[in-house]
Amino acid sequence: MQDSGSPPLSYLTQREAAEIDETLMGPLGFSIDQLMELAGLSVAASIAEVYKPEEYSRVLAICGPGNNGGDGLVAARHLHHFGYKPFICYPKRTAKPLYTGLVTQLDSLSVPFVSVEDLPDDLSKDFDVIVDAMFGFSFHGAPRPPFDDLIRRLVSLQNYEQTLQKHPVIVSVDIPSGWHVEEGDHEDGGIKPDMLVSLTAPKLCAKRFRGPHHFLGGRFVPPSVAEKYKLELPSYPGTSMCVRIGKPPKVDISAMRVNYVSPELLEEQVETDPTVQFRKWFDEAVAAGLRETNAMALSTANKDKKPSSRMVLLKGFDENGFVWFTNYESKKGSDLSENPSAALLFYWEILNRQVRIEGPVERIPESESENYFHSRPRGSQIGAIVSKQSSVVPGRHVLYDEYEELTKQYSDGSVIPKPKNWGGFRLKPNLFEFWQGQPSRLHDRLQYSLQDVNGNPAWKIHRLAP
Amino acid sequence: MQDSGSPPLSYLTQREAAEIDETLMGPLGFSIDQLMELAGLSVAASIAEVYKPEEYSRVLAICGPGNNGGDGLVAARHLHHFGYKPFICYPKRTAKPLYTGLVTQLDSLSVPFVSVEDLPDDLSKDFDVIVDAMFGFSFHGAPRPPFDDLIRRLVSLQNYEQTLQKHPVIVSVDIPSGWHVEEGDHEDGGIKPDMLVSLTAPKLCAKRFRGPHHFLGGRFVPPSVAEKYKLELPSYPGTSMCVRIGKPPKVDISAMRVNYVSPELLEEQVETDPTVQFRKWFDEAVAAGLRETNAMALSTANKDKKPSSRMVLLKGFDENGFVWFTNYESKKGSDLSENPSAALLFYWEILNRQVRIEGPVERIPESESENYFHSRPRGSQIGAIVSKQSSVVPGRHVLYDEYEELTKQYSDGSVIPKPKNWGGFRLKPNLFEFWQGQPSRLHDRLQYSLQDVNGNPAWKIHRLAP
Repeated sequence: MQDSGSPPLSYLTQREAAEIDETLMGPLGFSIDQLMELAGLSVAASIAEVYKPEEYSRVLAICGPGNNGGDGLVAARHLHHFGYKPFICYPKRTAKPLYTGLVTQLDSLSVPFVSVEDLPDDLSKDFDVIVDAMFGFSFHGAPRPPFDDLIRRLVSLQNYEQTLQKHPVIVSVDIPSGWHVEEGDHEDGGIKPDMLVSLTAPKLCAKRFRGPHHFLGGRFVPPSVAEKYKLELPSYPGTSMCVRIGKPPKVDISAMRVNYVSPELLEEQVETDPTVQFRKWFDEAVAAGLRETNAMALSTANKDKKPSSRMVLLKGFDENGFVWFTNYESKKGSDLSENPSAALLFYWEILNRQVRIEGPVERIPESESENYFHSRPRGSQIGAIVSKQSSVVPGRHVLYDEYEELTKQYSDGSVIPKPKNWGGFRLKPNLFEFWQGQPSRLHDRLQYSLQDVNGNPAWKIHRLAP
Repeated sequence: MQDSGSPPLSYLTQREAAEIDETLMGPLGFSIDQLMELAGLSVAASIAEVYKPEEYSRVLAICGPGNNGGDGLVAARHLHHFGYKPFICYPKRTAKPLYTGLVTQLDSLSVPFVSVEDLPDDLSKDFDVIVDAMFGFSFHGAPRPPFDDLIRRLVSLQNYEQTLQKHPVIVSVDIPSGWHVEEGDHEDGGIKPDMLVSLTAPKLCAKRFRGPHHFLGGRFVPPSVAEKYKLELPSYPGTSMCVRIGKPPKVDISAMRVNYVSPELLEEQVETDPTVQFRKWFDEAVAAGLRETNAMALSTANKDKKPSSRMVLLKGFDENGFVWFTNYESKKGSDLSENPSAALLFYWEILNRQVRIEGPVERIPESESENYFHSRPRGSQIGAIVSKQSSVVPGRHVLYDEYEELTKQYSDGSVIPKPKNWGGFRLKPNLFEFWQGQPSRLHDRLQYSLQDVNGNPAWKIHRLAP
């Protein structure tokens, strides 16, 4: 149900949906193989956005005789590759090569096919996700056997709602099977899917969808089709093959936690020198494709012991310490002048890793600041002059106007002078902690502390309780 | 070049590559439409991993007469949908429906086709990325016109390396065109691509690839093929259609920065109550699909003003404050008992947003801690008993042994008692800052501070210099 606050959204009639398919496979030159591949991939990607394989691995795809069933077979193949355990119920098969090929591909992945007879009447014990790929937008009339019975079994799953017992979630491909394509679930006795994946554009019945997760897939709609049918659709993020329609359900913050599954962090594996160990973890974070591996939370405390923290970019590190740059008259600058001690915190979420670094802080030599300042993009150099960091600014335009002016002034390529109060700080660590998230919150924590061993500083490693 | 430290990797001969294709399209039932769709999508996804559209939007795809060229045409379509501006040079066309369809699809997206004659001799000014999709693994002999000339133009681009002038990067699809499929670049006078996207599995010539970015695509290899050819390949992460082979090039940390492109954050848009504003941003972060939206850096300082910070999970917030749970005898617990003041920092990277919250901290009522403790998964409850947080532990096994024991002890489902020293803290904010990253570091910063207005506390909003 689209609430008034969300952006406009188009819904297609049955005839429009059929016309668009004909156009895509006619004058626009798509083959059904191509469209079905992208549609099935969108369904699999939507499922993976919400129902993670660690908790929802057993997927039953119930596939109908037509294209909707084909989308389900393709989705199952991709779900297999994404780490799920798919099962297929495909009672009414067609001899068309595309479809026999889809079955062969699944056979080659040892994906099991289950007959209607072998399927348990109560599907709730054996599956975590049920993909309803029985009927798509060409459906009309009443579902014939065995699909009438299969739909009945899905409907009966919904009675688990009251018993709060964990029950499989239902994901409908394009149309909840059995619904009227435009008017939805007439007698309100049909399937109530938890997720609907609309393909190309939502159909009219999607207005009656009440489940928590509505996604759009089929990232191939050209402008000519969008204009002709005045399609108002959400834009796909990045390289994603699906996009959520509307807002996600409100989350219960207190239940928000990830059961981390990670490699062990053992004493015998780590480096004796924590800076070398940091370099190892830093390179692995870069390799994992993190966008800003060098972003760190810098925590300071003023003379009244009031802590404050903000994200800054690490700009270099070696055995002498960890360097970042800033305006010395900013809040962090003034905190550090009152209390030259800080904590750095790296959090590389997709690796379930933190690194904590603590120690005294000093300014770096002015020459080092000069070199680095002039290595920055000229836009950032001008930004540093314009911004009296952390000071109150009367309005956004003040910054932008001054920025424009300076950009013109230095458009001749002349050297942009480093502001006097701009430069680097270096933290010289006396403590590191490497934290690796583990299941049931029994995380690995290896702390390096700098100790005096016969008059020389040496790193001691301890394991801390999580 | 594969260094000794990286995992083993398979390289196919020309004959093996051809055999695998025949198997996929023969007994394994794939159509060429399906394979080409997934191959082209992998190429586009690999490009998007490294060369972001904000900086590398103008892509020239040079497509040859065969399947390699088809992969390039599909990649161009997906790159268009990902926000790039593709151009196609496709001099030797085939009348096969699949290929004419691919051209029609690109025409429908108004992707321009450029003849060889209209292409500038020096490609460096007009393009940021050049996709070399001329010849694939069936290539042998010498490239014939016009491809010999097109390859010459790509080679000449590489002479820019010395002049440090920005020059287009070259991405080769499966085989750098003109290379021998097994022996590589005989006379060392051929293309030196910056990125190679190997499809299905790398071919032998990939051993001679020296560029910084080697990716694998074609996420459809079934076990039968992998076993027959003893394929050692990296595993694809999550739902990604490509995976990097080997380590990414060492990054110059000082040059690591993202030029944030975000919506403006204006005074007239934000809520008067910062907690309501936080709820808005929190829901948008959840909607963006962040894995742990409620993860925050908690910064404390001990009696000697030494700051420290670590990630904790926000478990609830309302007008009374922000709540998290922990062991009261941990480092953060002891800091807060010495100095009941903290800073919270949320960093929602993909939205280029930070929220800073500061204020005094107090323990929450014991009853609230009890309720929340028993709402946690039983594994986490046992973890809280086992872990004397931040204390030194002799070894990992100590924790796991005790955890096993307690799990058995409470396997009867009996109530797990909350440890006395475990409970919640509440921070009562007197300062919020909402930070939205903007280009050239001219970030939007709106700070709410709690002030006394005629004897009543009221939030005042100021814009701070970035």
